Amino acid sequence: MRAVDIITKKRGNPPRPEGEELSPEEIEFLITNYVSGAIPDYQVSAWLMAVYFNGMTFAETAALTGAMLRSGEIFDLHGREHEGLRGPFVDKHSTGGVGDKISLILAPIVAACGLQVPMMAGRALGHTGGTLDKLDSIAGYRTNLSQGEFRAAIARCGFAITGQTREVVPADRLLYALRDVTGTVESVPLITASILSKKAAEGSDALVFDVKAGSGAFMKGLDDAESLARSLTRTAKELGKRAAALITNMDAPLGRKTGNFLEIEETLECLRGEWPADVREITLALAARMLILGGKAASREESDSLCGNALASGRALELFLENIAAQGGNPEGVLGDYGKRRSPHRAELRAERDGFVSVDAYRAGLAGVGLGVGRNRTTDSVCPEAGILFRVPPGERVRKGEVILEAFGKDEACLGPAIALLKGAVTYSEEQPAPRILIYKEIL
Amino acid sequence: MRAVDIITKKRGNPPRPEGEELSPEEIEFLITNYVSGAIPDYQVSAWLMAVYFNGMTFAETAALTGAMLRSGEIFDLHGREHEGLRGPFVDKHSTGGVGDKISLILAPIVAACGLQVPMMAGRALGHTGGTLDKLDSIAGYRTNLSQGEFRAAIARCGFAITGQTREVVPADRLLYALRDVTGTVESVPLITASILSKKAAEGSDALVFDVKAGSGAFMKGLDDAESLARSLTRTAKELGKRAAALITNMDAPLGRKTGNFLEIEETLECLRGEWPADVREITLALAARMLILGGKAASREESDSLCGNALASGRALELFLENIAAQGGNPEGVLGDYGKRRSPHRAELRAERDGFVSVDAYRAGLAGVGLGVGRNRTTDSVCPEAGILFRVPPGERVRKGEVILEAFGKDEACLGPAIALLKGAVTYSEEQPAPRILIYKEIL
Repeated sequence: MRAVDIITKKRGNPPRPEGEELSPEEIEFLITNYVSGAIPDYQVSAWLMAVYFNGMTFAETAALTGAMLRSGEIFDLHGREHEGLRGPFVDKHSTGGVGDKISLILAPIVAACGLQVPMMAGRALGHTGGTLDKLDSIAGYRTNLSQGEFRAAIARCGFAITGQTREVVPADRLLYALRDVTGTVESVPLITASILSKKAAEGSDALVFDVKAGSGAFMKGLDDAESLARSLTRTAKELGKRAAALITNMDAPLGRKTGNFLEIEETLECLRGEWPADVREITLALAARMLILGGKAASREESDSLCGNALASGRALELFLENIAAQGGNPEGVLGDYGKRRSPHRAELRAERDGFVSVDAYRAGLAGVGLGVGRNRTTDSVCPEAGILFRVPPGERVRKGEVILEAFGKDEACLGPAIALLKGAVTYSEEQPAPRILIYKEIL
Repeated sequence: MRAVDIITKKRGNPPRPEGEELSPEEIEFLITNYVSGAIPDYQVSAWLMAVYFNGMTFAETAALTGAMLRSGEIFDLHGREHEGLRGPFVDKHSTGGVGDKISLILAPIVAACGLQVPMMAGRALGHTGGTLDKLDSIAGYRTNLSQGEFRAAIARCGFAITGQTREVVPADRLLYALRDVTGTVESVPLITASILSKKAAEGSDALVFDVKAGSGAFMKGLDDAESLARSLTRTAKELGKRAAALITNMDAPLGRKTGNFLEIEETLECLRGEWPADVREITLALAARMLILGGKAASREESDSLCGNALASGRALELFLENIAAQGGNPEGVLGDYGKRRSPHRAELRAERDGFVSVDAYRAGLAGVGLGVGRNRTTDSVCPEAGILFRVPPGERVRKGEVILEAFGKDEACLGPAIALLKGAVTYSEEQPAPRILIYKEIL
């Protein structure tokens, strides 16, 4: 087998410019030899570009995911009942957005309902926030668990959230870095394999995908989001996982707080039952898919009732605090910091006129990066105390001069440009806007 | 400027999957920095694949050719009348075929008509032969001339034929090697830039392209050949060169002899006026375009009459022999070797039945490689005395048992497989086949 023949087969020739389907063996050959260094970057980048143009079948995408998965360590959670790992193991993946703290709320809720959630999460990049950065704002909280620590945390509080170690899917780290500099990021099968290889490595039996669509999403258009959702669920099934996806609205920031510790605060609020309507609706919808796929609920109604109990009983909040302790943080400290850990570098945005307010997720996300919530490059550091507090819920009417939001920055200098961006993120309308559709579609 | 942005621009995004046109500055940036090592192979290979899919405008192709050309030494033949370089400088380029010795015949003919021909030629690769390998079969003949030696040979006998030095178009050497291993060879704009950058470096004012179509050609289909011909002439004109192209038939080997010294023999025959009809027709057609573009003839008729005189007077043959002397060979030795330099490893193919004979160029070319005429890899060596002598002109009737051809191999072992290949290359028909169309089209 030669790499150049595999590239050419994928590339295709007129009269078959769509290329031919690669066999699992060809894909395995390419990935294994790429990771070992036997196939150079320049052949793989040409192949990635051919995949960008010609796409992949679900079988090819599954073969790619499998080959990537096998390049590294696979967490095996099964057969460890003696450690307290009884399953079912169900995880959720979000394609990323602004103010998306749903993982932090959802994991303790479904854990309280009897699932075990092994969650490998990511960091902020560009305008989108990162679950790990939010958790890192908790003093002492560790997001670099060993496999043993990860398992122990799941056994103790029903879920664990950690970063991808160097041993997990090294093929994805290599391929992602290569795609980033060769214009081959925006490919549905490549995105699918990148997401799924990591999710399969963490040991879940079932996966629920929250594919965001809208200005603050990675896939802005609904069609693109739908094709990613279909690719994720179909490929997950090819790999023997139960799977479902929701396509959800990311035109506006989720909830009332974006930032790092600010989103930990909002998580506490939600787990106490004081939640913004958008976060509630999407969280409960995702929880239902997780509980149904995990066999803990037979219907949406049953799921809602289980989740309601988990919240009302305080069990979900308890597990969240237990997880903080299990991963090295101090739950009492977090509760004590509530409402206090705000950067002293603060600015307000006041309404320029009367009207109903809407906030654009993408611009708000960019403002967040400027404030220190996120990062432009993977090597940038983030500020735990930075963020945005929306004082007016989306769609509500404001009067000219009223404070719409407060911004907290890493320093004084960043406030002016961020407020200018936020000013551009806010629109005012005379008419009350129709309620946002939060869940566009379910893909099974 | 960043390489990844240039790749992405060329790649395009839905709804513009055809990509955007790159500016000359962007193309120059990419090539200059690739040659200097600042842009790595893996970005360039992804860009090449994007070009494969999206093509290039003539302006982009011209910018690429110019950037490649400027990566190395450019031969300047102008302003050197005191050295005997008076021009006009006109060259021909063939896309390569089987038995294509036309350069060797054409250069002395048009030189005898008053043109000066600076010719940088290539080596055999795959089933196609190489002009340099044919010339290297002449003892002492040098195809690695310095720029000074190249100019001196042109001044002395009106033409010189040499290989590409390491200093000429280094960007093409790098890009070609990369394309070869990344499935990006078969792209009309990339082929165009590769050919034209070398042709522009040798200093010609006008270029005539012989674009072959058929089984033994690089571009087998007529449509592909036509699009390459259009790309070559249009891009050459963008670069300020006069240009024309003929699309010619490469379904059957050209002439009666293929090989290395065997084609030097056939060159001598042609220059004495004893030429096969196919070689004659294509040579005179190409000569006419060269003489017209060079301002030495106003019409095909005038060109034919000039060429007829060049041959009848013996002047063309004289220049050919003069060139052998100028480039280090011994003309007397070549004349003395005529008909004698044949490998002792010899086999015949006899007609399997009665019928009119056709020979397939591609299979005959592959048989030639097996015999030692050409090479599979650029590092293979070739055998000067190997080749095929067709005893029956194409389209002629044979009787069963009659000798159709003789094969001369580098050793005894290669003869069996080569004869088997040649057996498959020969077809017999009951009816006399219609005369082959030798020149399909002219592209101006």
